[in-house]
Amino acid sequence: MALSVHHIAEKVGCSFRGDGETLISGIAPLETAQAKHISFLANPKYARLLDQSAAGCIIISENLTAIKPGTYLLARNPYYIFALVSQLFYQPVSTPDGISPDAVLEEEVQIGNDCSISPFVYLARGARIGDRVTVYPHVYIGQNSIVGDGTLIYPNVTIRENVTIGKRVIIHSSTVIGSDGYGFAQEGERHYKIPQTGEVIIEDDVELGAGVTIDRGTLGPTRIGRGTKCDNQVHIAHNVTVGDNSLLIAQVGISGSSKIGKSVTIAGQSGLVGHITIGDRTIIAAASSVTKSFPAGSMISGLIPARDHKKAKRTIASLFRLPNLINRVNSLEKILKDKGLMNSGPTKTHED
Amino acid sequence: MALSVHHIAEKVGCSFRGDGETLISGIAPLETAQAKHISFLANPKYARLLDQSAAGCIIISENLTAIKPGTYLLARNPYYIFALVSQLFYQPVSTPDGISPDAVLEEEVQIGNDCSISPFVYLARGARIGDRVTVYPHVYIGQNSIVGDGTLIYPNVTIRENVTIGKRVIIHSSTVIGSDGYGFAQEGERHYKIPQTGEVIIEDDVELGAGVTIDRGTLGPTRIGRGTKCDNQVHIAHNVTVGDNSLLIAQVGISGSSKIGKSVTIAGQSGLVGHITIGDRTIIAAASSVTKSFPAGSMISGLIPARDHKKAKRTIASLFRLPNLINRVNSLEKILKDKGLMNSGPTKTHED
Amino acid sequence: MALSVHHIAEKVGCSFRGDGETLISGIAPLETAQAKHISFLANPKYARLLDQSAAGCIIISENLTAIKPGTYLLARNPYYIFALVSQLFYQPVSTPDGISPDAVLEEEVQIGNDCSISPFVYLARGARIGDRVTVYPHVYIGQNSIVGDGTLIYPNVTIRENVTIGKRVIIHSSTVIGSDGYGFAQEGERHYKIPQTGEVIIEDDVELGAGVTIDRGTLGPTRIGRGTKCDNQVHIAHNVTVGDNSLLIAQVGISGSSKIGKSVTIAGQSGLVGHITIGDRTIIAAASSVTKSFPAGSMISGLIPARDHKKAKRTIASLFRLPNLINRVNSLEKILKDKGLMNSGPTKTHED
Repeated sequence: MALSVHHIAEKVGCSFRGDGETLISGIAPLETAQAKHISFLANPKYARLLDQSAAGCIIISENLTAIKPGTYLLARNPYYIFALVSQLFYQPVSTPDGISPDAVLEEEVQIGNDCSISPFVYLARGARIGDRVTVYPHVYIGQNSIVGDGTLIYPNVTIRENVTIGKRVIIHSSTVIGSDGYGFAQEGERHYKIPQTGEVIIEDDVELGAGVTIDRGTLGPTRIGRGTKCDNQVHIAHNVTVGDNSLLIAQVGISGSSKIGKSVTIAGQSGLVGHITIGDRTIIAAASSVTKSFPAGSMISGLIPARDHKKAKRTIASLFRLPNLINRVNSLEKILKDKGLMNSGPTKTHED
Repeated sequence: MALSVHHIAEKVGCSFRGDGETLISGIAPLETAQAKHISFLANPKYARLLDQSAAGCIIISENLTAIKPGTYLLARNPYYIFALVSQLFYQPVSTPDGISPDAVLEEEVQIGNDCSISPFVYLARGARIGDRVTVYPHVYIGQNSIVGDGTLIYPNVTIRENVTIGKRVIIHSSTVIGSDGYGFAQEGERHYKIPQTGEVIIEDDVELGAGVTIDRGTLGPTRIGRGTKCDNQVHIAHNVTVGDNSLLIAQVGISGSSKIGKSVTIAGQSGLVGHITIGDRTIIAAASSVTKSFPAGSMISGLIPARDHKKAKRTIASLFRLPNLINRVNSLEKILKDKGLMNSGPTKTHED
Repeated sequence: MALSVHHIAEKVGCSFRGDGETLISGIAPLETAQAKHISFLANPKYARLLDQSAAGCIIISENLTAIKPGTYLLARNPYYIFALVSQLFYQPVSTPDGISPDAVLEEEVQIGNDCSISPFVYLARGARIGDRVTVYPHVYIGQNSIVGDGTLIYPNVTIRENVTIGKRVIIHSSTVIGSDGYGFAQEGERHYKIPQTGEVIIEDDVELGAGVTIDRGTLGPTRIGRGTKCDNQVHIAHNVTVGDNSLLIAQVGISGSSKIGKSVTIAGQSGLVGHITIGDRTIIAAASSVTKSFPAGSMISGLIPARDHKKAKRTIASLFRLPNLINRVNSLEKILKDKGLMNSGPTKTHED
């Protein structure tokens, strides 16, 4: 498939400079692009790659001056335009049309138009699949669950009963939606199961990576808001709500009943305790353990960066001596004050 | 299904106050319950919700006084009674009776009475399934593995060969039991596989969440004790033993050959090195890295809570200056002692 | 199957001492071995077990003297010889020969000689399977993907399109290879998907544990080098390269575009940010957050060990007072210098 630069620019709503008849047939990075490729420069620190690139067209910031003659797409947000152009050239894997005779459908299953339901798919009673839905092999969709138009479900996904999946959702392999929340009442030494009868709601335009687990609510729903993107191996416990357009990076864990706002970013491997609220637009650094609520617009970190192991060992050994060290400094200050060598009056002893 | 309060009380072994003929048809939280619902109050901090609730019956502590007139179940442990009542009203998803012709059974497979074996289930040679076992689609059960009476296995579970699953076990989707332990011998730069020929034993009444991985032992068994509950994405390495009634929360990892006692709680994302022993009734906080053994009844933490990122950055920068800071305080103390401004004699310099 | 010690020694390239006609039919640990078993001693700290063992033959270091008479295999690297001997006695689970009629093959699929393709396997168009490949049930292999000779794929694995798997690779259950990398461009509040059209290359002799996720590259490949062994639940993001013979322990996460060298060991639950380089032969301790590049031969740690919770609480409370404590020590030093009690000149204030 080849498109002219002129045509691409029109489709993505950009202006262009140079030869609009240049034919582009794919995407490549600046370093390896050939004349048939379109590339992009979003980060000024890579600007030297521009001069060396053989790309037929390059998406650049409309503010970029002092560039060699050539063919460019001019964008306020070059990375976003790159995403749109990539989507133009993207050719999804084809899957067989229709409902495979090697799929198993229980009674009262409804399937919309232009679906692709593969062999080894299992649709339980009352499941309702919308239009233009693609379901790869080895997917289980439980009773009364709903899958919205345009959704794509990769192999080996489990969607339990009473789950609502919105439109244009993408669910990667081995993900589990609607497993029982982790709920037990202890009596003596034993733990008694609390049935988890709530639902899961995955709103439109969500993408869930591979190996994600999202538990159903105890009585009510666990909910992932519109446009949120979960990376691989994220864990969402029962009764959690995540707002729209949030980014949950790989291996994050969110404990039960916590509420994550809109446009929140939680970086990889972070963990949140239960029953807290994280305000809109908060950013949480990687490997951070969040133990309390934070208001909107917070920037939070608990990440301790790794160091050379000898330095790390020395630092950790010192760490456990720190409470005692504070006492020693208290004593030193007291001595100096008693000797008149230091002003009396409180020194700051509280947390910085 | 509707049950009278009188009948419910009898079934769960409680006394009641108020109108025993009140008909209850389901469970709801205090805030949203209607007259047909039963609700509960376990945590006194929510007591105000009692007054406002429209629930037909509420499970409360038998010690609770000063409540408005109404219908109550009186419990020593209200949360436990709530679990039992929930189980009374729980209506499990129905699955097809018998053995699906779209399941594949190798030779010498034995299946008990009243089982539900779904399409796309694969049972390898010599697998033995007890009575009243439910196996959802896309489950693999390996050679000579045993599944005890009343067990429930959700879709996309893998149970490898020579695994023993007890009675009334629940296994959630994408969980893997009996994968090879991670065992290699290094010679030069290369790593040579040590075949993992041991078993896995999952005792009665265990529940394993979604995406759990439990490796088979090298020569002997990996074992999960009776009544233990693993949350999603827990990882159990080869040759580990976990005692009865323990709680392993989401994303915990336990390295090879460690022994976890009975009634141990390990909170989310914690990691344990190999070859250690954690005594009975120990509680490990979330996000804790446990690097040595601890005796029974220990309470352990390694969690560093996240803070505002500016404060965090300042704190981390200070952290690596700490060994040097101790030296500086040592010097200050020496100076004051030499000048006779401070008592000679050792100051506490060891770990607090 | 029984082999004489003489025969075993010949097969693994060792010398032996004692009765070469001793028949061995299996492996066992020193403590439980009987006369028909072979065992090993690799760690001198367990030497006392030698004397008590009833094993018919024991693999020991050729440097070990002062041992009781008996039959021994003498090895420079006993643990490695133990691996080779284990492999001799290992009897893999048998799987049905040939291509099951209950597998589904799209058009243009090629399958080599002596394969075992189970029921419920799905092979998409153009998939090419080599010789002596075993594919367990519920495996999906995508369009144009290649699986090399001698590879073993356990149940419920997903291999997406355009993935190359080398020879003698072992892939454990629920693992996903070739899921979309996590790539989005933000415009306003919304996140626009960047199609991930790159590949994944898994080189020869790699082993991937259960529940591993390896994302495909954005435009180019994500690559795992020859002989590398990934433990369960490791996450490899898009565009990552891992060199040969590396060990990635359970639940490790490596962010996008990072480059891991050869013979690197990354211990459990560690996390690496994106776009960094970890040099050959580096060792990273468990639970470490690596935020920058390190050269070859580095030893790195960020692990904070858990302690008794009271001590931990006191230490953490002190931690956030540390920046202020440094200021207080600065002040004390200044006072002593101003009073002539301490030498002027800079004290070390930088990171240790």
